[in-house]
Amino acid sequence: MSSSALLDNLIEALQVMPGIGPVSATRIAYHLLDRNRNGGIELSKALSDALNNIALCPVCRNYTDHKDTVCALCSQEKRKNSALLCVVESPSDVEAIEKTGTYYGSYFVLHGHLSPIDRIGPAQIGLDELRERLEKEHIEEVILALSQTVDGEVTASYITSIARKLNIEVSKIAQGVPVGGELTSVDGNTLASSLNFRHKI
Amino acid sequence: MSSSALLDNLIEALQVMPGIGPVSATRIAYHLLDRNRNGGIELSKALSDALNNIALCPVCRNYTDHKDTVCALCSQEKRKNSALLCVVESPSDVEAIEKTGTYYGSYFVLHGHLSPIDRIGPAQIGLDELRERLEKEHIEEVILALSQTVDGEVTASYITSIARKLNIEVSKIAQGVPVGGELTSVDGNTLASSLNFRHKI
Repeated sequence: MSSSALLDNLIEALQVMPGIGPVSATRIAYHLLDRNRNGGIELSKALSDALNNIALCPVCRNYTDHKDTVCALCSQEKRKNSALLCVVESPSDVEAIEKTGTYYGSYFVLHGHLSPIDRIGPAQIGLDELRERLEKEHIEEVILALSQTVDGEVTASYITSIARKLNIEVSKIAQGVPVGGELTSVDGNTLASSLNFRHKI
Repeated sequence: MSSSALLDNLIEALQVMPGIGPVSATRIAYHLLDRNRNGGIELSKALSDALNNIALCPVCRNYTDHKDTVCALCSQEKRKNSALLCVVESPSDVEAIEKTGTYYGSYFVLHGHLSPIDRIGPAQIGLDELRERLEKEHIEEVILALSQTVDGEVTASYITSIARKLNIEVSKIAQGVPVGGELTSVDGNTLASSLNFRHKI
């Protein structure tokens, strides 16, 4: 209990952020109060603007600023008519792939992966919407760009089973040594995987 | 650049907090958007409430929720008429001292210490207001509870010179081994200091 109820309230509220405990929250609150009130007020505005307005694109489930409107990527003609659909776990994955400038298909963002222990089932990650898209659109190949964890693998095989029923090809992004990487600095599993998925030249 | 300008804006704004860089800011933004929008909206409200309303008490410069009104501690009769004034660097120091339940004098909060390199001079840490209080109130002893750093020492000697001119006694909280602490786990400087300031029993 400090001398100010508003301050106590702020310190409590700051702990909603992952990785921020009571000590960091107190330090942040004092810093904003003492040194950067304007920055803090702008943060307050940015938070309410973002959390009240950012919606999911009804087609790809990526974040968009305009509710009930198809997002900028999904509105591009070449994406709309693409036969490729890339499934990713997070909007930041879309960003990363777009930065490479080598993919021109459409996307589907799960916002997580199947995780029964956290009560995240197919409905929570939009797999019903994905099935609908696969049924309606003329998609020939689903590219899975999911994380290489147990939960990621389970999610991948669930999506594979949906796609196979609709006779749609499924592929997975390659695992192997990084471009420019030295073999000695790569872990054993990755190296084994890169040998396993070797391709003819 | 993500798919949402509001999201980019939020990630930028989150970096106003100390210790939060682009990577943590992105993680926090996605967490709030995906998992805890209500918590984030409450944080936005707590930030704007605190930063727009928390003021400094005109007497002790501690945080208070009511502008231009003396804070709860300074309004207590026993504090008002106390001959002791404890000078601290931060509101959290007041909290820490109050928690001990052994001090019943008044306080003065500097919100920092003298630091010419950061352009923090006497005016920025309220030393003019402190001088005014020492002149007006019947204070017999100023207790310095500042941090044991070079800047803290400089601030302490500046305040000492103000108080000495007004014939007010100045004391400094004791440095020494922590209560319940083992000698082997105490650093050398602290141990030397505890020997230096030994007292007769």
